[in-house]
Amino acid sequence: MQNLSSFAILNVTMKKIVIIGGCAAGPKTAAKAKRVNPENKVELYTMENVISYSACGMPYYIKGAVPSYTNLIIRTPEDFKKQGIEVFLNHKCTQILPNEKVVIFNTFNNGVYETKSVQYDELVLCTGSRPYSPKIKNINLDNIFHLKVLDDGIKIKEKMEKSKSAIILGGGYIAMEILEAFVKNGLHVTVVERNKNIMSQFDPEISDIIKNYIIQKDGKQVDFILDDEILEFTGTKGFEGAVTRNGKHLQGDFCVIASGVIPNIELAKEAGVEIGITGGIKTDNRMRTNIEHIWAAGDCTEENCLITKKPMYAALGTIANKQGRVVGINLNTDTSGVFETFDGILGSAVTSYFDFSMSATGLTETKAKIYAKNANIEPISALVTKRDKAGYMPDSKSITVKLVADKRTGELLGAQAVGAGDADKRIYTVTSALKANLTVNEFLHLDLTYSPAFSSTIDPLLTAAYKLKEQIDR
Amino acid sequence: MQNLSSFAILNVTMKKIVIIGGCAAGPKTAAKAKRVNPENKVELYTMENVISYSACGMPYYIKGAVPSYTNLIIRTPEDFKKQGIEVFLNHKCTQILPNEKVVIFNTFNNGVYETKSVQYDELVLCTGSRPYSPKIKNINLDNIFHLKVLDDGIKIKEKMEKSKSAIILGGGYIAMEILEAFVKNGLHVTVVERNKNIMSQFDPEISDIIKNYIIQKDGKQVDFILDDEILEFTGTKGFEGAVTRNGKHLQGDFCVIASGVIPNIELAKEAGVEIGITGGIKTDNRMRTNIEHIWAAGDCTEENCLITKKPMYAALGTIANKQGRVVGINLNTDTSGVFETFDGILGSAVTSYFDFSMSATGLTETKAKIYAKNANIEPISALVTKRDKAGYMPDSKSITVKLVADKRTGELLGAQAVGAGDADKRIYTVTSALKANLTVNEFLHLDLTYSPAFSSTIDPLLTAAYKLKEQIDR
Repeated sequence: MQNLSSFAILNVTMKKIVIIGGCAAGPKTAAKAKRVNPENKVELYTMENVISYSACGMPYYIKGAVPSYTNLIIRTPEDFKKQGIEVFLNHKCTQILPNEKVVIFNTFNNGVYETKSVQYDELVLCTGSRPYSPKIKNINLDNIFHLKVLDDGIKIKEKMEKSKSAIILGGGYIAMEILEAFVKNGLHVTVVERNKNIMSQFDPEISDIIKNYIIQKDGKQVDFILDDEILEFTGTKGFEGAVTRNGKHLQGDFCVIASGVIPNIELAKEAGVEIGITGGIKTDNRMRTNIEHIWAAGDCTEENCLITKKPMYAALGTIANKQGRVVGINLNTDTSGVFETFDGILGSAVTSYFDFSMSATGLTETKAKIYAKNANIEPISALVTKRDKAGYMPDSKSITVKLVADKRTGELLGAQAVGAGDADKRIYTVTSALKANLTVNEFLHLDLTYSPAFSSTIDPLLTAAYKLKEQIDR
Repeated sequence: MQNLSSFAILNVTMKKIVIIGGCAAGPKTAAKAKRVNPENKVELYTMENVISYSACGMPYYIKGAVPSYTNLIIRTPEDFKKQGIEVFLNHKCTQILPNEKVVIFNTFNNGVYETKSVQYDELVLCTGSRPYSPKIKNINLDNIFHLKVLDDGIKIKEKMEKSKSAIILGGGYIAMEILEAFVKNGLHVTVVERNKNIMSQFDPEISDIIKNYIIQKDGKQVDFILDDEILEFTGTKGFEGAVTRNGKHLQGDFCVIASGVIPNIELAKEAGVEIGITGGIKTDNRMRTNIEHIWAAGDCTEENCLITKKPMYAALGTIANKQGRVVGINLNTDTSGVFETFDGILGSAVTSYFDFSMSATGLTETKAKIYAKNANIEPISALVTKRDKAGYMPDSKSITVKLVADKRTGELLGAQAVGAGDADKRIYTVTSALKANLTVNEFLHLDLTYSPAFSSTIDPLLTAAYKLKEQIDR
């Protein structure tokens, strides 16, 4: 009995936590789990040769804004070691054995390929995501890139610096950032997007504003091929061009595929971990999977939409970090008594093309209308184009704000803001309102800070809310 | 009976609305009242020779950012005339007779001084505020200015352009803007503030950050005389300097008094309109005074604090515009059936000194502690200094965010944000949270937009919330 008891205490106060994945969620989980209980033995495994870096920063490295890729590295294995966390680079996980509480890794040790089996008390899957590769003929030609790991960023930059033209497959958030990088570096760029518009995450009229801004500013350097897709890459030695469904023959020195990411869930699935309908690992709001002692966080998981209450998938560094924090706390719930939840997301996102920012949260009108088919809501919207500060301020710039609400309850559903002016942080305000289920009627009373250098007396957000209210009152 | 009935209909569908005050709340009321019901006869009276201008824009005109003071004029009397609103310039109201529903004005008509009596169905008091003048010996010397009406701005700019030094009495929001204008124009400036710190609307440690920034940037041009006050202005012909309570002898080419404003309520008071404990006109949340058919809006009114639920006074263009909109709608409630409320304020405000912005909403810790003496709350706070975007972005800058909450309920009470980075719009987020009574626990889950060019993966706001949560959980 005494033995059993001390064994139990040992188990409770000191756990071996094994984390797979070294980009964002993994390192965050490791750091938090160790900080909450320094007794924990925390091991972080990654198949890359680097950990804890900002994948989102790569476009800025390619552009030249961030001078070196080493700037993107947040913490080194040595930093973790100082905190008492062991980091294992170049370790590729090949199997999870939940019953044995063991993970199998393949790695090189002194030049010798070896298989390693690692015991865990708690396992955290932070296996991330990988670029989605559309089915295209000759996709394995040289000079066709994805942008996912740090090495990709380095290679794309090297190639860009020797090139005069490029093709970007995809017209979403990351595509905009790469486009800016290439345009800034003097390239001619062809963007191929299968939707009718770039940035199709926004409502069509907002996407149009974005497209028109880019064409007006850099139309000589940028071609948009919309409502079309690449069927075949061409080239004898390496990539030379592409042929589209509509029969367009495109040329370029290289191509970047930026058509979204898919979660890395295969290992988890094989081990019996439940996968959600979006394709990401399903967790509860404490980030526990269906298998005891296995947790998941970051790009490999699916999230809950705070508005529709339905699963959605988003791969973003901010979510990965927040979830890592939650897991790090919850790994210690049995000793600390404290737990934390990750309640869901709004699909909030922001990017920019030079000084033109584009950000959104919650549902677009398009998405709200789809949602309305199976929900008791009646979406309405209001769009306002207005200066971002007092109109007489010489540096005031135009921004467009669109608010979406439910006419029946008056509750806000989402917001989009774009423009060369101060658009993005205004969306922050709406994330807060959506979290609180504020109605339009409540929102339009917001006591936003005002000074001519920062806003108009009635902020564009509130003007949009006034317009929504008129529709609700009708 | 028929006559009476048609008279009643006439009265209901066509009202004569008389508005006193032409800066912000007045014009807004006029425009809205006319738009809601074009049948209304709307008359706008002002004692100035100009209407509808941005008083808040004057520091930017003085600085030189706004090229001409005419840029500050939003709408001219002719613009109003086109909308069917009559504007009467140079009309000074001398008496309100509520029983007779008459207002008396003094004016010049073709060079002849005359008294005019104007009948109203509804009267709206938008009499604004005036600078507070501390009791100082020789305050009427030449070259001592206030900054309130457009003409003040013009005169100060003229004087500044011929001067090498100035004294600013006061260290608040407007003082910061004038200070920037003077420093930018090469003057040496002495700021005299009776509190222990400039920007004493903030908590002391935040005020210190502001002061240190200014001294570090422009210490050669700026002297702060704190915890002291001017007792006497000196000079034989005009202003030459000042003597302080602590015996300091200050010199300058001119002086601007920026020590706050007080509401213009005397006429209202004489007419029996109730004045609140803050000194502003008391209204209900539909902006009605205690006297039937008399309304008030803008700087002459007092507001309700959304947090303490107690009266507070704030003179801001954004409030004036929002209240003007509310009155304009409510003047028509009997015909439209629609009414609007003005629920209160958070004391939100923002200003900047060059690229260093300072903004706040809700209660500071100082104010929360005072409030706690008579309320069942236990204020706690968290302060975070962090980059405004990903640390590796070369243009990322430091900002400091302070959140204040009630440990007992977990509800947020207020926020302050300062810094050379993107601080101000983050306060917007908190105004939304305060409006919705969000708790720290809810706030820290906000799905804020993220991209390295716009924020860190965990926004400074959320880092501050995490720190607050640790205190709440303790």
